[in-house]
Parts: sequence; structure tokens; C-alpha cells
Amino acid sequence: MADISPLQKARAAYRPKLPPVFAGSGPFVQASEGPRTRPVADVEAIQAMFPHSCGKPVVAFEAGVRDGRGPLKVGVVLSGGQAPGGHNVIAGVFDALRAMNPGSTLYGFLGGPSGLTDNKYKLLDDATIDAYRNTGGFDIIGSGRTKLETEEQFVQVAANCEALGIGALIIIGGDDSNTNACLLAEFLQRQGRPITVVGCPKTIDGDLKNERIAASFGFDTATKVYSELIGNIERDANSAKKYWHFIKLMGRSASHIALECALQTHPTVALISEEVSAEKQTLRQIVERIAGLVRERFARRKKFGVVLIPEGLVEFIPETKRLISELNELLAKKSDTGRHFDSLASMDDKLQFVNSRLTPASAQVLGSLPGTVRMQLLLDRDEHGNVPVSQIETEKLLIDLVGDRIKEWNSPYKDEADKDKRIPFNGQSHFFGYEGRCAAPSNFDADYSYSLGYTAACLAAAGKTGYMACVGNLARPAGEWTAGGIPLTMMMNMEMRKGKSHPVIRKALVRLDGAPFRAFAAQRDAWAMEDAFRFPGPIQYFGPAEVCDATTLTLKLEAGQ
Amino acid sequence: MADISPLQKARAAYRPKLPPVFAGSGPFVQASEGPRTRPVADVEAIQAMFPHSCGKPVVAFEAGVRDGRGPLKVGVVLSGGQAPGGHNVIAGVFDALRAMNPGSTLYGFLGGPSGLTDNKYKLLDDATIDAYRNTGGFDIIGSGRTKLETEEQFVQVAANCEALGIGALIIIGGDDSNTNACLLAEFLQRQGRPITVVGCPKTIDGDLKNERIAASFGFDTATKVYSELIGNIERDANSAKKYWHFIKLMGRSASHIALECALQTHPTVALISEEVSAEKQTLRQIVERIAGLVRERFARRKKFGVVLIPEGLVEFIPETKRLISELNELLAKKSDTGRHFDSLASMDDKLQFVNSRLTPASAQVLGSLPGTVRMQLLLDRDEHGNVPVSQIETEKLLIDLVGDRIKEWNSPYKDEADKDKRIPFNGQSHFFGYEGRCAAPSNFDADYSYSLGYTAACLAAAGKTGYMACVGNLARPAGEWTAGGIPLTMMMNMEMRKGKSHPVIRKALVRLDGAPFRAFAAQRDAWAMEDAFRFPGPIQYFGPAEVCDATTLTLKLEAGQ
Repeated sequence: MADISPLQKARAAYRPKLPPVFAGSGPFVQASEGPRTRPVADVEAIQAMFPHSCGKPVVAFEAGVRDGRGPLKVGVVLSGGQAPGGHNVIAGVFDALRAMNPGSTLYGFLGGPSGLTDNKYKLLDDATIDAYRNTGGFDIIGSGRTKLETEEQFVQVAANCEALGIGALIIIGGDDSNTNACLLAEFLQRQGRPITVVGCPKTIDGDLKNERIAASFGFDTATKVYSELIGNIERDANSAKKYWHFIKLMGRSASHIALECALQTHPTVALISEEVSAEKQTLRQIVERIAGLVRERFARRKKFGVVLIPEGLVEFIPETKRLISELNELLAKKSDTGRHFDSLASMDDKLQFVNSRLTPASAQVLGSLPGTVRMQLLLDRDEHGNVPVSQIETEKLLIDLVGDRIKEWNSPYKDEADKDKRIPFNGQSHFFGYEGRCAAPSNFDADYSYSLGYTAACLAAAGKTGYMACVGNLARPAGEWTAGGIPLTMMMNMEMRKGKSHPVIRKALVRLDGAPFRAFAAQRDAWAMEDAFRFPGPIQYFGPAEVCDATTLTLKLEAGQ
Repeated sequence: MADISPLQKARAAYRPKLPPVFAGSGPFVQASEGPRTRPVADVEAIQAMFPHSCGKPVVAFEAGVRDGRGPLKVGVVLSGGQAPGGHNVIAGVFDALRAMNPGSTLYGFLGGPSGLTDNKYKLLDDATIDAYRNTGGFDIIGSGRTKLETEEQFVQVAANCEALGIGALIIIGGDDSNTNACLLAEFLQRQGRPITVVGCPKTIDGDLKNERIAASFGFDTATKVYSELIGNIERDANSAKKYWHFIKLMGRSASHIALECALQTHPTVALISEEVSAEKQTLRQIVERIAGLVRERFARRKKFGVVLIPEGLVEFIPETKRLISELNELLAKKSDTGRHFDSLASMDDKLQFVNSRLTPASAQVLGSLPGTVRMQLLLDRDEHGNVPVSQIETEKLLIDLVGDRIKEWNSPYKDEADKDKRIPFNGQSHFFGYEGRCAAPSNFDADYSYSLGYTAACLAAAGKTGYMACVGNLARPAGEWTAGGIPLTMMMNMEMRKGKSHPVIRKALVRLDGAPFRAFAAQRDAWAMEDAFRFPGPIQYFGPAEVCDATTLTLKLEAGQ
């Protein structure tokens, strides 16, 4: 037995809460069908691509009767980045299958979707499942980013499943993985191969949600970990009174994490990418706003603050987004310009070459960036020549630019006699991402993800292919949760990807007219000047329910609470 | 009422545990004196400098009888970096004073020791104390790094205290602040001014301890926060299986934090500065060891790992320590060489100038560093011209150097056919410092720091000047703790500081023959290869005692448990 921590031991004994329908009937539930559904947009195109899957009804589970079911063989796969609760989804699937028939078998495909095509798997037994209950991480079977999207892959997956006698696949992933799950489901139906495909909504970014899926699992835990740390840093800023902390938070394509953390911790500033994009803000404007606040707070003798920055910011600022897109085209490894650029030896020549070919606006933006960031954009490109957006240290970039602006303001006060007029600015940078992706799930995520797994197993048993497991009423206590499924096609529309139109699950960005953003917008001016820092503290697994069972403010506000 | 989090509300109600002597008698205890004490070294020199303070006996509190005491006026000050529990020390002082006599008064001096000389203070009342019970941070009265060490300052402090009628000062700080508290106590005794000075041991670095002071407050909480995050990252590394995480941890002058976190989380590698220094390891050797492990683990198909790095590492590697000291001398702002260096315009000239004047060994070390670090050492100097050791991103430095070494090993395998022979190495860097300094104290730190404050108030009431508050038997439950005081001189010796011999409290470095290091050394080879990652999880304030009341492994191992 490995040396595990006291908390690991205590959590191993935690029994996740389930929606009442399962508490009564276990997995012996009955699927009640609602009216037919339709995609969120591009109905005809989606209909044409998914003739077997599109238009199916929403399914709600109701109490059923215990029957004598045969054993099921089910495969499960984890896809994409880690999110707290993945192990509990698998435990939920396992427990539901075993409760249906003790002879049921669960195969875990290894290392993500490639495990399905390469036929790499392990049989999940009681001992394995028990060792991972309520733990963080995806290490039980690993994960991966291989995309399952070609017919060739689907043929292989079907052949592997049939060889093992697997009748259902449960795919735990984000919007892309669930889109592909639906393509696979459609393929299997078209070929008349009886393998049910069910999806589960996973993403700590919080961008896979809609009116039926109130939240993806993992978002609650990850934002709680980040909020704990932000609160600690706020307390530090307010005690030391001499640092401006710039904290970048995971979340490239949506700012739900930054918004939830802002609601939890009341920082001095929180940038929300969707607002930056909607208002077409420039980098200069953002810098001016923060620097102005540094100045204003200094006038009130406050030399400190905390700024939250969503990871994807530079891709939402129209001018930097355009610069990045121009650079990607110009420097593509396979293009003539890219090859020419690579052949230039000196940095000056490279810079001149790029400047002469960018649009004037983009050349100006590039010129306004600190030297280190400029170098990074030009030199640290990936195998295709794309600039490394995810590696841009936006938090340091902003510290540099704000610092430069303040130096300009301070420049008239070079004399020692004027030194009290100089605005002090000490920036400290942080980036929180890996710190939260594999935290042990909060009670909410432990319950929710286990319930999702249980639900997915029931959908699989009912042959509901092309569905996503759905647990409803999440803003209420688990005793009021519902369970069922929605057709994956229902969340789809057509979007341009790499110049081609593709069916995809629509990403949920932060809505500027949504309750969470409005609550933030109503309070942020006060937070900026008055230090209303709020300290959520670490995730609690025991104690009063309001401390250990509460979920996100995002979920509560969206539910109108 | 501010919008505080549910956990803040719940923690506000927490009643810290006290040693049984206070549970019985409240603050009406009796001081029992042990034999006379002596400094740890340099007895005669310390004796000569502290004739009134040196040699006093250790004091232990025993049950006393409730008596009719007059009201006391006491001042309290927070000195130096934040540590979890500071607010509880103050609450403990406050509660003990009020229990002695409800008319007692507690003055909080603002912004650190400078509040004492500048006479900046606030009266601490019930409402203020209640708002900060069991919270992190030092924001109740702020802190600062001004050193109280000159006679002129002492005269001012005495005058300010006398004007307010303050009969005792409680100074909460690290080794330096407590050394200075003793100088102040000695000064006041010499002048016959009846102000008692009592110290409290604070440092998250854990380097203020000895056979009587088993731990400083804050170390438990800070290491728990860091261990939570390290565990989460280990889980992520083990799930994604493609990153090597290099994590720098606060602790410049000793590696207690890195060692405690290693014992809690079982990382792939943990560097301990004291061992690096004792074995006179070179940077090259450290890099070779880590790179070798990357290679060995890759041979076992493991492309990931977690490396812990103490913040002070480069000051413990003999060759980099020498380089830094040579640079500090060469580039001192007031020196001829420093001025000449500053007058040089081009980076190449600067580098040439430095290289020609460093010893050959140091020039070689400088040359071996990545360009960015080299630039930082030469350009980012402070007002005295010192190189910014605390800003060196040691975690990135090691990633760069390990990466370079692996590139060398990979260089024979340029062919696509050989690509499987190339060792992959993706480094991710982290630095955890501010994340833990202001966390809300764990139950242990909440109890311990409150008990320290209570004890300090009793020492103040008993007129025990030049003492440090001491709570004993800490590795046992609070129901077995003892309380008393030890003379500050007892921990002192003479050390060279800036070319002069000074009396200082001896810093406790990690002992290579101590139980914590030996426990680590016995297991680390297994951790390096076998992934024995351990996940402590977040601090719990509720739940089973083994989860929410356990203290550090360092303390347990040092106590022989």
C-alpha cells in the first residue's frame, strides 16, 4: 500500500451524492422522451451531416423497475486536458454497470482517443476504481489529444470494439471531443453497427455549457483552487502594501474562469476577454486603464493591487489577434515567405523582413511590444510556424507596458526633491493553470461527475447513441438534481475552421448580458478603489454545507439565485 | 458588513486551543524559573554586550491563582515578511490582557518597527480583533522591514512608549527582529526604564528554531499550501505524462520549506541547499544529475517529473555564490569599477569589462549561464549595485541548462529515422511564495500562534524582558502543550555581517544529520524512479483530527515520532 496522505484516505471513503432518481432506482431507470430537438443554428447543414443523430428527443430519467439485465461491456476514454472529477465519472460508470449486472465489464482505453484506434486498454476492476475514487487527475487511464475524426479511424474503433464485444463507448471530453463523438455515433448508425456512443461534458474552462448543460465538471474545483491562491495574494498585497500582482488564469477561449474568480475574490482589476473584444479595445487602452488606476490609487496612498488576466487575452484584442494571424500566415513553415524568414541569419534582418510585409497597423503593434515578447513571437514558433500564443507571458507583458507608461508620467520628477511625486510600481507576475487542473474534486464536482458517469452508463444501457449525459438543476442541492441526456447535435452549428465549414458544438463565451458579468460589472468600480478583497480559502471537504458543498457563483447567478 | 466568504465566516467562530495551563488558570499563571542559561556560542562576547539580559533562567508557566491585577498597557508590532498566524498572536495577546483586567489596553504599532519610532499606532478594540481572528495576513496593523538597531531609535521608542504609558512591547518577528528586540530590552534595562520587551518567533522559512523553540508560526500553513499545489502538479504531470515541472519554493537562507514539501509530496527530485553547499556541488553537477534522471526515466518511458528547488539555491552553490560576491564587489555603485561599468554603453563592452576582472573560475561560471540570466545579473542591480539574487529565476535557469544538456545528447539523432532515440524534455516553471505567506492559518498555526500571543502577554505581565515566548511539546496535541519563555540571548552567537562581528540569533539550517533530512535521503532514490507522488490536498479546518489538526512531518520527525 502506497504512503497516501490523511486527506487522501478520508476522501477515499467519501460517497458522492446522486440525483434522487438513482437513489431510488439505482441504474434501473426509465428514459422518458421529450419533443424532437434541433441544432442551435445551421439546422439544414447539421441535419444533412447527421441524418441518423439529428432531431432526437431530449431524454429524462424516471424511476424504473429492477429487471434482470444481461452483463454489459462498455469502453471509456478521457480526452484532452485534465479536469477535476474525471476519475469520478469513471467510478460512476463502473458502479452503475455493476449495479445493473455484476458481470458487466468496463474497459478503460489508454492515453486518450488514440487508445481506441490503437486498441490499448485495461480492464477496470474494483481495486483500481477504489484507488481513484474522489481523486484528481486523469492518471487512472491517462488522456490524450488525438482527434478521432476520419472514417479510417472510425472503422478501426468499430473493429476494436467489436473484437472486444464492447456495446457502448463513453467519451469524456470538451466541445471538440464531443463533436467527434457525435461523428462517430453517426458513422456507426449509418453502418448499422450496434455500438452506442455517449459523451460527458468536461472542461475547466467552463465554455461547454448551454441551457441544458449548466456546467462542465471540473470548473468548480479549478476556480476554487485559483480563488484560494488569488485571495492569499490579495491578503499579501494588502499586508505588504507595495506590490501590484498580475495573475494570469487558465482559459484561452473564454474568460469564465477569470470572471468566476473575480466574483469570488473582488480583485482591483479583472480583464474579461469577451468585453475587450466587444469593445474593440487596443492594448494601449488596456494599459492606459491599468496605469491610470495605479496612479489614482497612489493618490490615495495605495501602492498595491491585484489584476486578473484571462490566458486568451491577446487573441481577443482585435489588433493583436490580427498581428498574430498575419504573422502565422507570413511565417508558415511551408510558405515562401516563411522559408525566406528562416534563411535570414540576423535578428535585425528578420525584423525588417517582417515589418516590411505586415500591414502598417500590425507593424506598429509589433513595434509597441517589449523586446522579449517580440523575439518570442518571431522565434518560438511551432512546427507549422505558428506563433506560440499560449506561451506569451501576457502577465509580464502588461507589467512591462504599465511600467513604461508610469515611467513616462514620472519623467518630470527626476530631482530627489520631487521623489514623492513619482508613482511607485512594483509588478509581480503569476500564472495559475496546472495548479488547479488536477486538484481532487470539490464535493460539488465529486458529486456532479460521479452523477454524470452514472447517467452516461444508463444512457449507454438504453442505447441512446449520440447523446450527452446531462445532470440538471445543479444550482440546487444534489437532492434536487435531475438526470437524462440531450442529443449532441442539439448543441451544434457550422463554423469555419482552417478555411472549411465544420459542424461543431458551439462554445459558450462569457455573455456580457449574462447575470455573472452584470454582477461583476456592477461592483468592479468599487473593488478598484476600495479594496473589497474577499478570501475564499482552500476547498473544504468537511464542515458546514455552506462551506463545503457550495458551488460557483457563476452557476448560482445564471440560475437566477 | 463586508461581503466575506462562507469559510471566513466559519473561521471567525473558531476558538483556538491553548496549552492546559491557560485552560485552567487563564492568564493568572505563575512563572517558575529553571537554571541560568548561556548563549549557544561566543558566551563572553554576548555576556559583555548584554550584561542585563544574558544568563537569565528559562521560565515555565504553572497554574497560579486569580488575583486582582491593575490594567496593563501593551504595544505590539509585526516585523518583516508575512506569516500565517500573525493576527492570532495579536488576538492571543489581546484576550490574555483583557482576561487579566478588562481595562487593559493594546496598542498596535503600524507598518512594522517604524511605527514604534514614528509613533504611528492604533488602539486595538474588540471589534477590530474579532474581524481578524484566524485570518491570514498582517493587514490588521501592517508590517515593515525597518530595523530597530540604533541607540537613537531606542531612545525614540522609549519616549513614545512612556508618553503612552506603555509598560511592555511584544515584537513578532524573525531572527533579526528578535535580535533587535533583545538589543532594545538591554538598552531599556541599562537605562532603568521599566518597559518589558518580549519576542515571538515568526518565519515561514522555518529557520528560527532550536531545542526550545520547535517551530516558528506560519511554517505549517505555508508548507501546507505549497504542498497542496505541488501535489496537484504531480497529479497533472502523471496524467499528462509530457512535462517536467520545476518548482521554486520560498526560503532563501534555509531549505526547510523544500524539505518539508518533499516529505509531504515525494517529488522526482528535491534539491536541498545545505546539501549542495556541504558537498560543494557545482551548477554543472546539479544539471548533470537532473538531466541524467530525465534520460533514465525516458528509458523507462516516463517523460515527466517534478523538481523542487529552494529559492536560495544559487547562494549555496559555492561557485555561483563566489561569482555573485565578486560581481557585487566589482559593480558596487560607489566603486571605480562600478562607475566605469555603468559608463559603458554596449552590452558587449560591459561583458568584456566584467570578464576581464572576474577570477577565471567566476568568468567561466558567468559564461555558462543562459544569456537572459547573464543580462539580469549585470543589468538588474539594486541601488547599491548588488545583483538581484532573489529575482534570479533559478527554476527557468535549470530548465534551460538541463534542456541544453539533453540537446547535446540528442544531437547524434538528427535523422527522422532516429527520432525515437531523442530524449523529449518539456519544462514548465513555477514559483510559490506569495501564494502561502498570507493563507489563513491552519488549525495548528491558529492554535500555536494564539498560544504564543497568550504566553507573550503573560511574560509581559510578569516583567520578563528580553524573553521569547515559547510553547513546548508542539509535536503532541495542544492538550499536552507547555508555555513559558526563554532568554533571547540563549539563542545568540556572534557572526560576521558586512565585515563586522554582530550578536545574532543563530539561524537553523537544515541539518544533514537531522531526522527530516535522513528520512528524505532514505526515500529519494525510490521517488526519483518509481513515482511515489503523494497528494496532501488543501488545508482542512474541519473533519477528522488526523486530517485537520496534523502538523508538519519536520516537527514530528524532529520530535522523534
